[in-house]
Amino acid sequence: MAIPVIIDCDPGIDDVMALTLAFAHPELEIKLITTEAGNQTQAKTVANALAFASYLGQNIEVAKGLENPMFRELEIADAVHGDNGLGNVEFPEPTLKMSERTAIDAMKQVLLESAEPVIIIATGPLTNLGALLFTHPEVKQKIKFISYMGGAAVGGNMSPTAEFNVYVDPHAADLVFRSGVPIVMSGLDVTHKAFVSMKELQDIENIGTDFALKVVKMLSFYIKEARQTAFHTPDFEKSIRLHDLCAVSYVLTPELFEGDDCFVQIETDGRLTAGTTVVDYAQRSGKPANVKVLHTVDRTKFVAQFVDAIKKMSQLTVDHN
Amino acid sequence: MAIPVIIDCDPGIDDVMALTLAFAHPELEIKLITTEAGNQTQAKTVANALAFASYLGQNIEVAKGLENPMFRELEIADAVHGDNGLGNVEFPEPTLKMSERTAIDAMKQVLLESAEPVIIIATGPLTNLGALLFTHPEVKQKIKFISYMGGAAVGGNMSPTAEFNVYVDPHAADLVFRSGVPIVMSGLDVTHKAFVSMKELQDIENIGTDFALKVVKMLSFYIKEARQTAFHTPDFEKSIRLHDLCAVSYVLTPELFEGDDCFVQIETDGRLTAGTTVVDYAQRSGKPANVKVLHTVDRTKFVAQFVDAIKKMSQLTVDHN
Amino acid sequence: MAIPVIIDCDPGIDDVMALTLAFAHPELEIKLITTEAGNQTQAKTVANALAFASYLGQNIEVAKGLENPMFRELEIADAVHGDNGLGNVEFPEPTLKMSERTAIDAMKQVLLESAEPVIIIATGPLTNLGALLFTHPEVKQKIKFISYMGGAAVGGNMSPTAEFNVYVDPHAADLVFRSGVPIVMSGLDVTHKAFVSMKELQDIENIGTDFALKVVKMLSFYIKEARQTAFHTPDFEKSIRLHDLCAVSYVLTPELFEGDDCFVQIETDGRLTAGTTVVDYAQRSGKPANVKVLHTVDRTKFVAQFVDAIKKMSQLTVDHN
Amino acid sequence: MAIPVIIDCDPGIDDVMALTLAFAHPELEIKLITTEAGNQTQAKTVANALAFASYLGQNIEVAKGLENPMFRELEIADAVHGDNGLGNVEFPEPTLKMSERTAIDAMKQVLLESAEPVIIIATGPLTNLGALLFTHPEVKQKIKFISYMGGAAVGGNMSPTAEFNVYVDPHAADLVFRSGVPIVMSGLDVTHKAFVSMKELQDIENIGTDFALKVVKMLSFYIKEARQTAFHTPDFEKSIRLHDLCAVSYVLTPELFEGDDCFVQIETDGRLTAGTTVVDYAQRSGKPANVKVLHTVDRTKFVAQFVDAIKKMSQLTVDHN
Repeated sequence: MAIPVIIDCDPGIDDVMALTLAFAHPELEIKLITTEAGNQTQAKTVANALAFASYLGQNIEVAKGLENPMFRELEIADAVHGDNGLGNVEFPEPTLKMSERTAIDAMKQVLLESAEPVIIIATGPLTNLGALLFTHPEVKQKIKFISYMGGAAVGGNMSPTAEFNVYVDPHAADLVFRSGVPIVMSGLDVTHKAFVSMKELQDIENIGTDFALKVVKMLSFYIKEARQTAFHTPDFEKSIRLHDLCAVSYVLTPELFEGDDCFVQIETDGRLTAGTTVVDYAQRSGKPANVKVLHTVDRTKFVAQFVDAIKKMSQLTVDHN
Repeated sequence: MAIPVIIDCDPGIDDVMALTLAFAHPELEIKLITTEAGNQTQAKTVANALAFASYLGQNIEVAKGLENPMFRELEIADAVHGDNGLGNVEFPEPTLKMSERTAIDAMKQVLLESAEPVIIIATGPLTNLGALLFTHPEVKQKIKFISYMGGAAVGGNMSPTAEFNVYVDPHAADLVFRSGVPIVMSGLDVTHKAFVSMKELQDIENIGTDFALKVVKMLSFYIKEARQTAFHTPDFEKSIRLHDLCAVSYVLTPELFEGDDCFVQIETDGRLTAGTTVVDYAQRSGKPANVKVLHTVDRTKFVAQFVDAIKKMSQLTVDHN
Repeated sequence: MAIPVIIDCDPGIDDVMALTLAFAHPELEIKLITTEAGNQTQAKTVANALAFASYLGQNIEVAKGLENPMFRELEIADAVHGDNGLGNVEFPEPTLKMSERTAIDAMKQVLLESAEPVIIIATGPLTNLGALLFTHPEVKQKIKFISYMGGAAVGGNMSPTAEFNVYVDPHAADLVFRSGVPIVMSGLDVTHKAFVSMKELQDIENIGTDFALKVVKMLSFYIKEARQTAFHTPDFEKSIRLHDLCAVSYVLTPELFEGDDCFVQIETDGRLTAGTTVVDYAQRSGKPANVKVLHTVDRTKFVAQFVDAIKKMSQLTVDHN
Repeated sequence: MAIPVIIDCDPGIDDVMALTLAFAHPELEIKLITTEAGNQTQAKTVANALAFASYLGQNIEVAKGLENPMFRELEIADAVHGDNGLGNVEFPEPTLKMSERTAIDAMKQVLLESAEPVIIIATGPLTNLGALLFTHPEVKQKIKFISYMGGAAVGGNMSPTAEFNVYVDPHAADLVFRSGVPIVMSGLDVTHKAFVSMKELQDIENIGTDFALKVVKMLSFYIKEARQTAFHTPDFEKSIRLHDLCAVSYVLTPELFEGDDCFVQIETDGRLTAGTTVVDYAQRSGKPANVKVLHTVDRTKFVAQFVDAIKKMSQLTVDHN
């Protein structure tokens, strides 16, 4: 029986890798894709979601999300994801049209109408989701859990302590983390271990399909920046990190991951630390855990799962000659 | 030739261990001991410094420091250090008298009058030192470096991200870290590795002197709390951490330690993160390093050095029958 | 032709005075009443709205709002409004039932379905409205303006600089004030001039109806606290301030009020000043005005309008013997 | 018998007007002038103090203060005070030399050596004074009170709620306001009433001395900016406000002023309100008053006192032909 999911993303190179994995697995029933402003502006992320889903022959509702974080100016990651958000790799004009519903309306209605609880896979800032959960708390009971790529127990990539997705909209993240909905957090702790090696990148290139070559081109764009921003691991070999893919992979194959149940709060203030996921690893607070913080992944199986998805989806790419 | 030092401390169990090591090494010329409010109130830390130095037969000026942090209410660590600040171990009435100079005046004059630059060993909150450096910047040129026990690149012990000494007075710490004076930081990263094992505690007890037995009694008090607050290492064996000792040991034997030069800032604000030492491990900021952040210690030699100091100082204890 | 309005309130003694004025004027087409947590908890404010509207024979949808501010703990004003929120004056069991729609859903649908722009009269914290405007920005075009009781250009009543309604949920207020929807602000600047004198209170009592007597009883409860919290005007005579009434009266009779167009921002942070409406009176910022800040009211006409409403509504009170 | 005073200032146009008044009154024994960075950089304010005191034939120690605020970047008011800090009016090379003592050392020693308590007149940011009082609390008993130009009960001139002097270094101000030393605050509430009219400016010009003409030239520079920044009083006639003069005049003739005793705190944080003097006018806090907040001045006598001082000091100006 299919697992109903909503994917809230900001494509973004690793977002489309995550979408690829989700599309390749029919055991996920993707009821909706919504987009966040984050890796690029809302206009670009929704366009990318439409183009990419169209290219891979999907017929899924794609709804446009909110334009700006709750209280902060939007900061995008164009250095990492390129001017078009996809490493400047071009996809054909989308056949899918943007939903007439807003992301919030669509999420709300899909959740309320679902017979069984839905898993939300979130791979961008949490603006849509934070606004939804605060404004419409009645949807919470229809969410099984949120599989979230974001945050870090240790370190950061936007500042020494803050990860990009949480940094972009810490207030929205705070609303999500305090919502009472269970969260599985694929933070930098695990995503820095979820890399594709140079050898594996070559394997992907050897698949030889248009899609595989596009994947390689996007990931190669990714390298350049990743190399510069490697967190204390100037190890080129480990620099293609498929952050967002973890959030999908965990839903499909939780057995590939290990983590700890922790009490996690979001620092919304601070001159230097806004956007930090404050993880009570040592359990000093005595507060009950609200998040499973992943820290380990079986990288070999994780990458194999990804390569299989590329192969499978290569057969579904729309006529691109 | 002796190395001139000033020791600014808040005794405090591990502070007196640090003093023990300093007293045992004549190559340190201890020009002054000043006290901070921290592990206990100023009234108790200065009394402890006087009693302990007297007990070990020292003749060093001990000057009383400021009573309260710059902007926050004083929080003490009586759960860790006991009601008297020394695990409720009693020392004889001090023969030393408190200096008639304030800690600030004494520090300032000792520095300005010193022919050569002085190393400041600081093992408590930085209230005195922050106030001194901001108010009297002319002393900076007479400070070789500050060997500081405090902060952490990863984790905390007062909150998930803040170490006690910095947490108590983050504004003073900020003044010190921005002062331009070089800092060697023995944070939790290294001090959590600087423990005395149960076997080694037994070795100390076997020395059999009054002083050795007092040391064991203090460290045993320390265990109880340390056990509860162990940072993600519920490993009883590693729970007697001689945090403050690192700051003295580094001055004597820097070859026992390894660390990285980093740009470090202090979070003075934040709902959850005030008092965090924000360590730019990944060197994303491009700012020049202001701190050597220690992360590794040769524990065997470090403990041996400590045990030797206990043995040596046991011969100097004042009439304690 | 009737003016379509939505009333978002937290009854609250002065809220029901405001409702009274609105009910008495058929030129207002009250499409919806929604409730905020503020003067009392959400459970009590919605119960009060239902009971009061029922008592005055109204047939208006009353929808329950959000339970808590966005980021702060709820603080209520029970000292001012009493344990039941209405000065402990009892009303009959309501004949109206709570809407099956949430306040947010009802506001959103009423706005989107309205042929012409709606005026929102808001007399409590702005939690519902802030969440609505951020989450569903498409409703903005259907709002003519927000007539808001809250804030102050000078002074405060929860702190030296913060007025209660904004103080309770400054983040929601910030979302509203930055929304681009025009705002007319009846802050303390004008509401402190919008009082009922002791003589006028006697006039109301002389009306002699059950409703008039209830009004007097509520306002008399109000005096006790008001007297204590009078802002630098220990003038008993001026202590019954009908704050919320201004927001309704302005919609009916804007000619009774004077104000200035200003750029107004909300301080969401600050140790002492959170919840302050920062009014750029001197127009130093050069930013375009987003708020008309009222500062003067024709008190005589304002009170006469209120007394007329009490008389009129006295005839509509439901069987209360 | 003379009143011993220390003047801590940041000349600054109105600072030199304040110095003029102080110099003209031998009943003030000016033991020391110290300088703050504020209206201009420390280098320029100390140079201006030396030049101005020399020009008026004074023989007073002038000691250089701290260069920068405690935690914020220095913001200067060159738009108001000109590139040289004195409306670009030039004074002869100073005959006085800068003290060899720092401002902090000089203040501390003057206070500790004084037989009777000293009044500190402060007309700039409070960096020196805040650092002194925190670092050397033993001086407090030698301070009779601080006559301070800064802050506002209502309004601001750097932001809608913050006055310049407090805004520049709110942390230092906080240390002073929490120090326990009595404060008389000449804030914008009174200083906006302490203006020189155009007619009176003409009277000063008519004195005809070099000094009087320099005063007019400085005040005329002042007008241009003052006109633009007038707080809600675009009244040109009232735009030459002698803010700093109030702090001296109050010491000489307190009977010219009226004020209220209030509990005043400093907002050090806040996105919009940092540097606000939070004045508990309504006495809601129940905290004991720490500040006399002046709100009224007998302007006629105040200006007459100033004009007399110009006349008197005109006779003392050094060879300026």
